Amino acid sequence: MNARVKNVFANIPSDLPEELFQTLVQDSHLRLERIVSRGHASSADEWYDQDFDEWVILLEGKARLQFAKDKSIITLKAGDYLFIPAHEKHRVDWTDPAVESIWLALHINRISDG
Amino acid sequence: MNARVKNVFANIPSDLPEELFQTLVQDSHLRLERIVSRGHASSADEWYDQDFDEWVILLEGKARLQFAKDKSIITLKAGDYLFIPAHEKHRVDWTDPAVESIWLALHINRISDG
Repeated sequence: MNARVKNVFANIPSDLPEELFQTLVQDSHLRLERIVSRGHASSADEWYDQDFDEWVILLEGKARLQFAKDKSIITLKAGDYLFIPAHEKHRVDWTDPAVESIWLALHINRISDG
Repeated sequence: MNARVKNVFANIPSDLPEELFQTLVQDSHLRLERIVSRGHASSADEWYDQDFDEWVILLEGKARLQFAKDKSIITLKAGDYLFIPAHEKHRVDWTDPAVESIWLALHINRISDG
């Protein structure tokens, strides 16, 4: 195994009291992070209202996202991805408590911002 | 299945005469693409010499990359990722001809460029 190669499914702490956020790539315009969840979810009325666009993919596990606009819930399985525009309020409704859910999230600052 | 959700492992053409490149997200600074390979590789002395940084992950399949600097070869399995700075010459030495290899590649223009 070459030192410059890492694996997105590896190095999962056995104990995960909080969701784990790890930045993989970052510059002034974007941030790519790995998120590891195990049963973590947003509180009942806690909504993310982000200044940045987000592209997110669930690589492993199962999760549900909810959107504030119409309260719709989408269920995600491994490989599912979607785009969440800035300020589209959403929350993590559920992640599977029995397994790790591993996400990649790409946060993209809007070019016209600032 | 919600219409806004797609799956990175789905919609693989049964016939893949060429590698398949599909842009998932793009702005003036970045491009995220899905690449599907099935036995495709670079020609023997064909090197990518890219103006942009690249973060790449192999999500499914098996592949080998080679670097021009020292001719080193790295073998990738599902979940393996690495960062390839702009102008680090590299080639796809091999992808498994028996299965699809599915990649995500994030191309990042250098902020100071232009």
